[in-house]
Amino acid sequence: MFDINKIRQDFPILAREVNGKPLTYLDNGASAQKPQVVIDAVTRGYAEEYANVHRGLHYLSNLATEKYEAVRGTIAKFLNVKDPDEIVLNSGTTEGINLVAYGWAMEHLSAGDEIVLSVMEHHANIVPWHFLRERMGVVLKWVDIADDGSLDPQRVVDVISDKTKLVAITQCSNVLGTVVDVKTITTEAHARGVPVLVDGSQGAVHMPVDVEDLGCDFYAITGHKLYGPSGSGAIYIKRDRMKEMRPFIGGGDMIKEVTQDAVIYNDPPMKFEAGTPGIVQTIGLGVALEYLMEIGMENVARHENDLRDYALERFKTLNWLNVQGQAPGKAAIFSLTLDGAAHAHDISTILDKRGVAVRAGHHCAGPLMERLGVTATCRASFGMYNTKDEVDTLVDALELANELLA
Amino acid sequence: MFDINKIRQDFPILAREVNGKPLTYLDNGASAQKPQVVIDAVTRGYAEEYANVHRGLHYLSNLATEKYEAVRGTIAKFLNVKDPDEIVLNSGTTEGINLVAYGWAMEHLSAGDEIVLSVMEHHANIVPWHFLRERMGVVLKWVDIADDGSLDPQRVVDVISDKTKLVAITQCSNVLGTVVDVKTITTEAHARGVPVLVDGSQGAVHMPVDVEDLGCDFYAITGHKLYGPSGSGAIYIKRDRMKEMRPFIGGGDMIKEVTQDAVIYNDPPMKFEAGTPGIVQTIGLGVALEYLMEIGMENVARHENDLRDYALERFKTLNWLNVQGQAPGKAAIFSLTLDGAAHAHDISTILDKRGVAVRAGHHCAGPLMERLGVTATCRASFGMYNTKDEVDTLVDALELANELLA
Repeated sequence: MFDINKIRQDFPILAREVNGKPLTYLDNGASAQKPQVVIDAVTRGYAEEYANVHRGLHYLSNLATEKYEAVRGTIAKFLNVKDPDEIVLNSGTTEGINLVAYGWAMEHLSAGDEIVLSVMEHHANIVPWHFLRERMGVVLKWVDIADDGSLDPQRVVDVISDKTKLVAITQCSNVLGTVVDVKTITTEAHARGVPVLVDGSQGAVHMPVDVEDLGCDFYAITGHKLYGPSGSGAIYIKRDRMKEMRPFIGGGDMIKEVTQDAVIYNDPPMKFEAGTPGIVQTIGLGVALEYLMEIGMENVARHENDLRDYALERFKTLNWLNVQGQAPGKAAIFSLTLDGAAHAHDISTILDKRGVAVRAGHHCAGPLMERLGVTATCRASFGMYNTKDEVDTLVDALELANELLA
Repeated sequence: MFDINKIRQDFPILAREVNGKPLTYLDNGASAQKPQVVIDAVTRGYAEEYANVHRGLHYLSNLATEKYEAVRGTIAKFLNVKDPDEIVLNSGTTEGINLVAYGWAMEHLSAGDEIVLSVMEHHANIVPWHFLRERMGVVLKWVDIADDGSLDPQRVVDVISDKTKLVAITQCSNVLGTVVDVKTITTEAHARGVPVLVDGSQGAVHMPVDVEDLGCDFYAITGHKLYGPSGSGAIYIKRDRMKEMRPFIGGGDMIKEVTQDAVIYNDPPMKFEAGTPGIVQTIGLGVALEYLMEIGMENVARHENDLRDYALERFKTLNWLNVQGQAPGKAAIFSLTLDGAAHAHDISTILDKRGVAVRAGHHCAGPLMERLGVTATCRASFGMYNTKDEVDTLVDALELANELLA
């Protein structure tokens, strides 16, 4: 049962005003707000139950360790991964993809080898591969989207060659909302012996994810977009890939033994988790995922799809508004531009005066901006707590912007 | 004015009991507890003022960005660094030292080049250099301590050769409490053209730090040991060194422009900060450092030195107790072993029953354990809120452990 009023009450920040107007928070693509249960978990974590994890034998250390380590299982459940030890805890997708780049790809690729990417990727799933291009001569192969923003999985498959060593692809574009058929891509890539990394930063937020069904080798998530604390996250890594990886970040916890002459590394997943982790934020992420699972990701998706349909209906009536990307089944993420010279930053500033929080810019997706022929868009990205009334507020504010800027 | 009762009231967790006894928290070397102002800042950050930082133009994003970016200045002030842009924000010392290893050392060292370390280093300041040994053939040169745990800076200087490219050294041992004269080491190393990295994980917690006076090239701190949130931290990097560094973690924020064929990196410090950062925990770290500066680090040091002197007096009366490391001017960190077969883990378990939280193990200092000829110690590490009464509680609990285990 999806009770939008109850859900909105769970998020304290939604009750606040900005610039004298009720907050209409449509910047979920950048980061989501946090329910009270998550905030409470963080507060309790510091005020009552705090200590460093692992290696400790005292009461608080055991308590924090139990709560922290339990999150591995919660994430596994959320992603439908059977073995929690295939989950590496980290600070988010950026760290996760860099782990794969440094820990796996640097070991397995050499000059001339290819990595296949879509033009819709976020910089977090581009720059680590550019490092390999700059440092090792790896070749990046880009797959274009259709004009409506959709991505034909066959296009990805067609680019795979004997030189391809990895497909790295988003499950859901943070700019267009396009949902990618990563299951078909994974099946076909695997048939050609190529591992697949899925950037789940947006995908895991907007739809149920079943990593076992997808079959991918790597699936990265970011806690702060999943209604969890900043600085939390994880990456699923298939056990076979883990075995092929060297460590990335060096420090405490990821070792079994250190002497002057040698290091014996810990077993995965600990091998890939160095130093004191983000203890309390990870515990908070676990609570956020429990919260989402209680509501049901299929219900979240249904609600957001309703919002998407309603927003598209309303946008259709605005003949001066361009919605970049209209792929069927897209998520409720809208990159908007106005006809004429109006700049995305000016639009967002006017929206802000009406309490509407959107993001203007390149959205960390340089190649996609180039493909779209724009330098920036104004992005309204919806979350589980948004409403049709807020779509109306957005449309009213856009109309004001159009009047002022036209 | 250092009011210990007021300070204790600032830390809510200190009022709790564990195992039916008042908490005596002596595990500060692993992580420190948080004052209410920090917890409140985190709660407020999520409940009222949350959004992603940078690139946003709406009210909440501007607010979060201002608060987040202000922390750079707070850290600079805390460390007496003039230019806040020499501060790279991160998740802690482990990430900071890995940044130097991957971003600076991998660019500047080659096979046969030497890195000078003390045998007291924490794994965070060992394993990243072992990576360079394993991957590039870099040579690690170890400097021994004296039997009392002290480190003669001249010993470090004597090891520097034409091949030496870096000295990486702790300011304060997390096991022995030994304070290292990093200023002399830096002066002498610089006279020989060798940069110096200082691991300030413990040093910054227990004494006033003046990075300008120290003159070092890199100074790494960890927020969670500085009474700040988990997953927060920073590293000071001298501007000249920053210019020599390539980026480490790739993703959003650390770029100016990304195309299919190229990346133009952002200017430092942003060049070294990829992806959505630990927004709220960094804001919390700023509040923690303001709290410490208001109390005065010289007052914190004086209080902890009083505790150290009192503890050493009390320990002297226990002829079955060995205090590893008795260097003059050491911090209030005590690695304890009992005569006979008693294992550190058993001691700490008995202490825990009395509400005394200490840590047992190798304390992420493998080479030091080898040097001391032990596999583990029981470490009592004091913080700003500890008291002489708690020293007495520790001694009582140790006496009980000795009775039970002797």
